[in-house]
Order: sequence, then C-alpha cells, then structure tokens
Amino acid sequence: MKNASPIDVAWMRRAVDLAARGLGSTHPNPVVGCVITARDGHPVGEGFHARSGGPHAEVEALRMAGDRARGGTAYVTLEPCNHTGRTGPCVDALIAAGVARVVYAVPDPNRLAAGGAEKLRAKDIVVEQGVLEAEAEAVNHVWLHSVRVGRPFVTWKFATTLDGRSAAPDRSSKWITGEAARADVHRKRAECDAIAVGTQTVLTDDPELTARDEQNRPTVRQPLRVVVGDRDIPATARVRNDRAETLLLPTHDPAEVLRQLDDRQIRHLWLEGGPTLAAAFLRAGLVDQVVAYVAPALLGSGFSAVGDLGAESIGQLRRFTLADVTRLGDDVRLTLTPHRKA
Amino acid sequence: MKNASPIDVAWMRRAVDLAARGLGSTHPNPVVGCVITARDGHPVGEGFHARSGGPHAEVEALRMAGDRARGGTAYVTLEPCNHTGRTGPCVDALIAAGVARVVYAVPDPNRLAAGGAEKLRAKDIVVEQGVLEAEAEAVNHVWLHSVRVGRPFVTWKFATTLDGRSAAPDRSSKWITGEAARADVHRKRAECDAIAVGTQTVLTDDPELTARDEQNRPTVRQPLRVVVGDRDIPATARVRNDRAETLLLPTHDPAEVLRQLDDRQIRHLWLEGGPTLAAAFLRAGLVDQVVAYVAPALLGSGFSAVGDLGAESIGQLRRFTLADVTRLGDDVRLTLTPHRKA
Repeated sequence: MKNASPIDVAWMRRAVDLAARGLGSTHPNPVVGCVITARDGHPVGEGFHARSGGPHAEVEALRMAGDRARGGTAYVTLEPCNHTGRTGPCVDALIAAGVARVVYAVPDPNRLAAGGAEKLRAKDIVVEQGVLEAEAEAVNHVWLHSVRVGRPFVTWKFATTLDGRSAAPDRSSKWITGEAARADVHRKRAECDAIAVGTQTVLTDDPELTARDEQNRPTVRQPLRVVVGDRDIPATARVRNDRAETLLLPTHDPAEVLRQLDDRQIRHLWLEGGPTLAAAFLRAGLVDQVVAYVAPALLGSGFSAVGDLGAESIGQLRRFTLADVTRLGDDVRLTLTPHRKA
Repeated sequence: MKNASPIDVAWMRRAVDLAARGLGSTHPNPVVGCVITARDGHPVGEGFHARSGGPHAEVEALRMAGDRARGGTAYVTLEPCNHTGRTGPCVDALIAAGVARVVYAVPDPNRLAAGGAEKLRAKDIVVEQGVLEAEAEAVNHVWLHSVRVGRPFVTWKFATTLDGRSAAPDRSSKWITGEAARADVHRKRAECDAIAVGTQTVLTDDPELTARDEQNRPTVRQPLRVVVGDRDIPATARVRNDRAETLLLPTHDPAEVLRQLDDRQIRHLWLEGGPTLAAAFLRAGLVDQVVAYVAPALLGSGFSAVGDLGAESIGQLRRFTLADVTRLGDDVRLTLTPHRKA
C-alpha cells in the first residue's frame, strides 16, 4: 500500500514483530500478530498466535484491550479469518468488540478462512489492506507459499565439502561440518513440520531424524519423520523409535510425497535426502529453497550431494538466487532460492 | 614486541600502510614502508618500495627527510637490507644519514640481504625489533613465506557449482561464476608472479592466461604463464601469444615446477590448473592457500575441481582454516589456508 500513514506503518511493524514470536510452533496455522489502538490512538492491546488450537492473535489483543477497543483500530498481519475451526471466526470477535477500523497486511489465501474483509465491510467497519505487506509476507512466507501453491514448501538441506562431496567412497559422512553448523540444522529441523530422507540414507546412516537442542535433548515439538522409497527399513532403525512419528512412503515420485504430506497439513518439508531423492525433487522443480552447509575441506572422491540432473553442457546449469551467506563456526551456510517465484 | 610505546606503534602502522601501496608491483622484492622522525619526534620523511629496481623505502624516506634525519628515528617494516643489488645497502644510507635509532618490525629472512641490524648496532645505533610485527608480517606474507620456505607461495584457484562441479560432462565451463567473480580473478592474477595450468586445460579451454582490467584490457604487468605437463600444445594456442611470457614445463612433479619457478624468483604462483594438476599439488602438500569461487548453481554431473586425493573414508578429509568469506555479485569467494603454518 502506497502512502500508508507513518502511524499505521509503526503499529503494523509491531504486529509483524509479534507474529514472528509464533514461528515454529503454530503448525499447521500461519503466524499472526495483532495490535489494537483505542479511539484516541493509544495502544490498548496486542497479541500473537502462539500455537495451533490456542487463541488467535486478534482474540488475544481484544482480550487485553477490553472495552477500550470500541471505536479503535485493529492492526493485523494477515486478513482476519472468517472461519470456525478450533476457535471462532476472528471477524466476529472484531465486530463484537466494536472496532471502527481494521488494517491488515496480507490477504488470506486460504479459501476456507477468507472472506473476512468483506464481512467486516458489510458491518460498516473501515477496512484497509497492504500496510507493510512485504514484511508481513516475509514472516509468513513458508505458510503463504504452501497454501497458495497447494503443497508443502520444500527446503533441501545438504552438507558438503568445497569440492562437492557429501560422503566418502565408503559412504561415511560423519562429520563433514562442525558443531555450529550441526546445531543450526537442528534449530531449522525444529521449525519444520516434516523431515524426509530416502531409504538409502536410513540404511547407510541410520539417522534418528529428530530435532535436538544444544544439550542434545529432543525438542518438545518433533517434526514428522518421512522415509521415501520402497526398500525395506529394519525394525531396529532409529527412525522407527518412539521419539517422533514416522511415515513410510513407498514411492519414488516427489509429487506423490508432497500430496501425501499436504493431506496431513504439512506446510514445510525439510528434505535431507541423499543424492537420488534430492535429484528427483530438483528435476521435478519441487525445491523452493536450498540450504547448503559448506565445509572448508576437500575430499577428492566419494559421493556428490546431488545425483544426475540430466545436464550435458554448462548451459544446463541450474542457477539459483543467493539469498543469504552466513558463517557458522568454521563452515559457511548458503541459502538459495529459485530465480522465479512460484 | 610487548610494551612497545604508542608512538612507535603509530609510526610503524603508518609504515605498514605505506608498504601496502607497493603490493603487486615489487616482484621479486618484498613490500617495505618507512617513516623517519626527527630528533624532536616530528615526522620528516616517508617512503615505500614501489617497484623492483626503484629506490628502497628507507632511501625514499631519507631523501625526503634530508638533514632532519640526523639524530632521529627510522621506522621500517622489514629489517633494513645489508645487500648491494640494483641499489646499495639501506643500512649504509641510514648510517650516513646519522639516524640515532632504527625500529623495524620483521627480521629479513633473506640470507643475502640480512645482517642489517647487526651492522647498525656496530655503529652504535639503537636497534629495536618487533613493533607491530604481526601486521608487518601480514602485508608481506607471500614474500616472507616464499623466502623462508625456499619456493613460491602457491594459491590454488577454482570456480565451482555448489555441488562441486567445475565443468559439465562435455567439459564446457564458461561461465560458472558471474562477472564480479571473474573480475576478482583478474585482479588477483595481476598480483601474482606466475599463473600455471595443466596441458589439459590449455587443450580444452584455450585460455590466454593474462590479467585483464575491468575494460578487458591486459594490465601493464603480466604474470609469467606456465603450462605443466608433457602433452603437445599447438602453436596457435592463445597461451603462446605475445601478450605475456610463457614457460612450458614438461613434468608432472609439482616440486619440480616450484624449483624451476624459484630459479626465476617467482614468489607467488597462482594455480588455475584442472583437477589433475590441483590434486598433484594437494597430494604433495604444496598448496598454501585455496581461493574458491562458488556459484549458487547445481549441475549434478560433470567434472570436479579436484581429482582423487586418495581418500577412502571421511577421516581422510583434508581440512583447512576458513580465512575469509566474501560475496561477489551472485557468487561467494571462500579463502582457505592450511591448518598448520609452514
């Protein structure tokens, strides 16, 4: 929205900051932040969506504001929902509280929950959209992407030497990167809804695929573990222990994997698969982000992080946008995004 | 040197800054900076070594100081030389100028030129060593390494995709990295004394191996071009044109390459060789720095930057210290140094 007032921008910025506090714990819902100002412009309430099943941001903020919300303005990062799920529609709460104006940043792409703005307008509430839209998009980009495209957002993660080796000739790979990089992987695993590997990785590395904190304890929330492929997994495999739920998907089709995960409302898939699984997702155009941990080391032989992508000539190079470069201890994390937005 | 006076440190810092101005143009000499303060402590002269055959830093500074050097102090980044080459010994110039004190940072490791401090002391000049030694070492590290170890300092450069491919299956490799990275390579080539490739690279890529500026014009000073290996190079190969001198070394032994280059007073070799040449230098422990340009791109097939290093298991990973990470346009430059100092 062009020419938004500095006051509107300031309160929306606060709402975006509040929204971010929910990151990693609202699955399968988006993160949302809300600020309520009274008729005289003073802030009287704020809230954010902290976890699925818990109160929505608007309800939290209205509760804090009480009667002072009447005639005031609600700033919300996402269009208020018009949907009765485990909680009632937020638009009804806003109407009941008597707010005079609702400013929201991003329209709700979820057909089930949308229509909130329309309903508010029908009650003669002033509704404005677009304030700080880019920032509000960014904080929710995984969820928004997933709902808009109708499948989980896919992050492919790999660790590699500088010469592109993810395992030695004997398939050993522990450890290419150092502690800081490995701790970062666990933080990022914990923010996702599912972690997928291929059967080869299970048979070779026997990973547990849990998210662990810096004291190596499993985090409270554990992503779904997904094993892709039709080879048998021994009953003793660590991925089958009771630390988290595990889903075996006997398929080689990435689109089928995503369909199954979408049915389970998985918004963010963290793909840790070996070269075969990674190549299948890349060939299918189903990787939305690449997170590579590069160690300052050379191996000279062994297995590449990614299998054959069908390239014969340099013109068939798959280029990405370099979104971020971060040093983590002795290693470097590169984050890539596709050139074209979905 | 511990407890150096802040005044000595300040003048030595200025001398190090002056020294740095000569980087890339003093071959085969070191860079040197010098500041002269008068008896009352005021600065009266400064100079740096700008090019081989030109005046040494001390001579420049003394020339500026004139009679005001008498009874004063000379700050020099490197021990003043006691050697008559194309110019006379600097110690004689300092003695003739009547300085009362000489402070230098790094001892001269060159047996031919050393002994300067001793000769000054014999003339009752106060001599102190070690002020700002680390900084003075750093500005001259390539030259100092070369003289101390008795062979050229070797930088191995390569460009690679994130999955470690330096060429496609059809050997095409133009271009993996973007303009900013390629311009950086040309700047760094121009700072070296020689550029080496293997015969395979000449036969495949037909590179000119010159240093060019941002307008793609050859720079004034061109490194020696070195082609390693015993395969025949066609007379029409661009590496044989008259833009720079070219040396053909029909050997596969990196140590022999370095011996031949040391005879020609090459201090800094920039190794651009393909996987075979790079692996030979790495296996021989003759790589002192790795400069990798990593593109945010995946190939999935093709040629690795480095050939077999004999590793079977992850324990045989060759680890380096990550000295620098710099983003260059869409690419990332990683600079690695060996864990152990030579």
